[in-house]
Amino acid sequence: MSGTGPIRVIPLGGLGEIGLNCLVLEYGQAAMLIDCGLMFPEHYMLGVDVVIPDVSYLRELGDRLLGIAITHGHEDHIGALPYVLRQVDVPVYAPPMAHGLVREKLKEHRLLDTARLEVFRPGEEFDLGPFHVDPIHMTHSIVDTVALAIGTPLGTVLHTGDFKLDQTPIDGRASDLPRLAEYGSRGVLLLLSDSTCAENGGHTPSERSVRGGLDLAFRETQGKVFFSTFSSHVHRIRQVIELSQAHGRKVAIVGRSFQNSIRIAGELGHLPLVPGLFVEPEDIADLPPERVTVLTSGSQGEAMSALTRISMDDHKVKMTQGDAVILSSRFIPGNERVIMGMVNHMVRRGARVYHHETAPVHVSGHASQEELKLMLRLTRPRYFVPVHGEYRHLVRHRALACEVGIDPDDTFVVENGNVFEVGPDGAAIVGEISAGRVLVDGKGIGDVADIVLRDRRHLAQDGVVLAILGISQKTGEIISGPDLIGRGLGGEEEIQGHFEQARGLVLEGLQALAAESRTDSHEVTEAVRKTLKRYFSKALERRPVILPFVMEM
Amino acid sequence: MSGTGPIRVIPLGGLGEIGLNCLVLEYGQAAMLIDCGLMFPEHYMLGVDVVIPDVSYLRELGDRLLGIAITHGHEDHIGALPYVLRQVDVPVYAPPMAHGLVREKLKEHRLLDTARLEVFRPGEEFDLGPFHVDPIHMTHSIVDTVALAIGTPLGTVLHTGDFKLDQTPIDGRASDLPRLAEYGSRGVLLLLSDSTCAENGGHTPSERSVRGGLDLAFRETQGKVFFSTFSSHVHRIRQVIELSQAHGRKVAIVGRSFQNSIRIAGELGHLPLVPGLFVEPEDIADLPPERVTVLTSGSQGEAMSALTRISMDDHKVKMTQGDAVILSSRFIPGNERVIMGMVNHMVRRGARVYHHETAPVHVSGHASQEELKLMLRLTRPRYFVPVHGEYRHLVRHRALACEVGIDPDDTFVVENGNVFEVGPDGAAIVGEISAGRVLVDGKGIGDVADIVLRDRRHLAQDGVVLAILGISQKTGEIISGPDLIGRGLGGEEEIQGHFEQARGLVLEGLQALAAESRTDSHEVTEAVRKTLKRYFSKALERRPVILPFVMEM
Repeated sequence: MSGTGPIRVIPLGGLGEIGLNCLVLEYGQAAMLIDCGLMFPEHYMLGVDVVIPDVSYLRELGDRLLGIAITHGHEDHIGALPYVLRQVDVPVYAPPMAHGLVREKLKEHRLLDTARLEVFRPGEEFDLGPFHVDPIHMTHSIVDTVALAIGTPLGTVLHTGDFKLDQTPIDGRASDLPRLAEYGSRGVLLLLSDSTCAENGGHTPSERSVRGGLDLAFRETQGKVFFSTFSSHVHRIRQVIELSQAHGRKVAIVGRSFQNSIRIAGELGHLPLVPGLFVEPEDIADLPPERVTVLTSGSQGEAMSALTRISMDDHKVKMTQGDAVILSSRFIPGNERVIMGMVNHMVRRGARVYHHETAPVHVSGHASQEELKLMLRLTRPRYFVPVHGEYRHLVRHRALACEVGIDPDDTFVVENGNVFEVGPDGAAIVGEISAGRVLVDGKGIGDVADIVLRDRRHLAQDGVVLAILGISQKTGEIISGPDLIGRGLGGEEEIQGHFEQARGLVLEGLQALAAESRTDSHEVTEAVRKTLKRYFSKALERRPVILPFVMEM
Repeated sequence: MSGTGPIRVIPLGGLGEIGLNCLVLEYGQAAMLIDCGLMFPEHYMLGVDVVIPDVSYLRELGDRLLGIAITHGHEDHIGALPYVLRQVDVPVYAPPMAHGLVREKLKEHRLLDTARLEVFRPGEEFDLGPFHVDPIHMTHSIVDTVALAIGTPLGTVLHTGDFKLDQTPIDGRASDLPRLAEYGSRGVLLLLSDSTCAENGGHTPSERSVRGGLDLAFRETQGKVFFSTFSSHVHRIRQVIELSQAHGRKVAIVGRSFQNSIRIAGELGHLPLVPGLFVEPEDIADLPPERVTVLTSGSQGEAMSALTRISMDDHKVKMTQGDAVILSSRFIPGNERVIMGMVNHMVRRGARVYHHETAPVHVSGHASQEELKLMLRLTRPRYFVPVHGEYRHLVRHRALACEVGIDPDDTFVVENGNVFEVGPDGAAIVGEISAGRVLVDGKGIGDVADIVLRDRRHLAQDGVVLAILGISQKTGEIISGPDLIGRGLGGEEEIQGHFEQARGLVLEGLQALAAESRTDSHEVTEAVRKTLKRYFSKALERRPVILPFVMEM
């Protein structure tokens, strides 16, 4: 392990998408991983449950991979651990809240016994081979978030994790700017910084700025207040607990993810779990509605969430005239129509709904342009690589770096799978490893190939037709069928009419085949497929998946 | 036809959704229809092309339906005409731009010869039986938009259509507030008013306010300017043509919908079609990039649009370093991810992308709360029914009416299919007719039932397995198979392994059947289905659609 080789940065995910954050840092024979996140499937990934990064490169690293450092406990930073730890057996270092959430997650996956979990707090430095890791406290939409200053023989690599520069956070603990400045003075070799909101001008408002909007909603409400956000957003939840106390409301927690998250945060001292403040969901009906706040998951309109079921009057907790619902999160792109469907149900129950498009009840946890520039000015890196974002975010963030005076030649738009090297004499993208997305579907891991997704899309758009035919092996005479079975095509009656006609055409088509072709099941199969394809395309303007099966008798 | 019966208002679409606007007005034995729109399918309507209102009620009306009056030429107001005119043969009255677009549409559907199309301008009153229709000029995101003041023996029904109150429209023709006020003074019996933006506070900015944002984009761009909006947004297009002239750029039009729309608007005098300003797409490559504006469709990221193909470098028109793209429209909920995918491609081509989330390049065409209140104050209706919106919009608009002093008892949230009556002594929802949505899929109309959508969803999520088996009719002995064929399940190799095992289980399961069951193809079919269902559920945590077929030999 010599002191003269380069540092290698290899993103496995998160540089080209929102989510899936996972980045390899290498020096000599040693490697460490920063974060190990998932993402939720894109609209075209039919039947896929979650998406994780392809970590075959980690398996290649083998013993050279020394550990995984986690910056915070969001799913897009920890969610792939249960899948990845089955493939590589290394210790996981995480700040307390993330540690608690990872434990919970590994327990569910029955991996807790074999996993090696270490917890660290800001300032509690630790070593992974040649990497000296110094966690620096940052503000974000979950407590216990850190940046990682990673000392290497060539200099410091600073990875911001996700962050905003909140000067008035709820717990009073602002991002550790002095520490960042200290590293800046000493010299940062490479800055890797969060690009999620690189397109947003100005400064992201403080978490505290939401207080006024939430308080107004509480004051305007005669009935129950239903409150929903991401279950890990501890400071948001803390504000709602404090507001409930101030307005004389008891707090009921509905849903397992909220219960877990609040328990973990409470044990860590992040939430004021005042005795007598909390009530069981069963007790809500016995309290006057103006004395109740209901904390519940489902702000994204998830199909099976408590909130969706409550909105449809399909839950023991009832939503009634005069109640309010506060959806305290951004609508993730792709979810709007489902969320608005849920809102319509709530309005029908008689509730008033507050959400970020109509009321100031949410702010982002990510830095906007002025904060990103401040980070660049404070740390004055030799080289800069934007991380965490789609291609457009990375390019925009790079432009910001150039605006604050970093030489464009020292900034790099690196993408997943790129091998980016920083040596004593320069930096460059020098190669590529195999990276990508693994689509997890039920028990299978990584078995949903493009062809399978294409089949599913095809099935979903146009349905399927089976054609079953028995032919005599000797004469090619049709002994049975063609029988047609369809799914997802159209109305039963209409389709039966079409099948009637299609059957006739198939028979005609087979008559037209040469005698020797008629005994060749492959040729018969193709003839059936062609006839049916042509028929449905013409009669219905559809291209169902056609599956002919010829049985030789 | 007596003068004492009530007026009946029966919405067939648009009161409970954005889109699908279609409303019946009846008096005595006479009926007229206001607008006949479509909507684009919801995310769960797999394989559906467009959605139209169920107009079986119009067929029931028969000869009593006297005509259709169109308020403006947007798809959600005219798009269902080709489907509905096949079912009812009545004249269609439309303002000039809508008239031109309807003609184009009916031509495509080969219905132009049989359709009866009438054109009207604001102030050109016409009669449909007892209905005296007075079209009133309004501002909206398409030219030639009208409200309809409809005189009836009981009083005036005022339908606003879609509108905003733009005091500085591009062509200088503001909404005809004096005429609306005149009706208010004379007395409006019932106001039906656009609720699309009833949740937006304040006042929607003027179309003219976009000019500054567009101009800045032009000034910042050294390369070509690609500009996209809805093809019917004539005033937006006019601004871009004017800016192109001002900045010394020629204009190329790419895409059929844009060409049609610009031709129609030009013939009607809405666009300055300056000779020598326009060039053919083929000529773009010969011009310096800073001398070119490209008008093109695809601002919603539609898969086959010119803009999507240009972004992927799959078009004769090339996008290169230094070009700009202006996406001058709202992102329709559900389209964001696709649009952002397209934006990433554009950034990769080297283009800078301006869109409503990052630059002031779009304003809405619908009235916000202050305009809606102004409309209510100006027309002072006896009764009020909010139209055009989801349930939450209708409820919010009703609340606005109460805020400006309309008695809550005189306001009604009416939904699709409700029969709302206004008589001399009061108003009420008195009944219901059969209404709903018809999902159009290829050539079929209204043949996509819930069960079909459910099948498609199931196929899309979990794929399909066919099991084909030949048994002896006499002995129940298995002569052929079971053969398994799958689509959309998983990787070929892995699935073949599963099929191997599943085949074994199917054979075992059949051995276990009683001898007489084995000759009953129905029982065999069910046994096969059960075995496969259990196997895939356990092995893959999936529930593919299972289609067993037993052939008796």
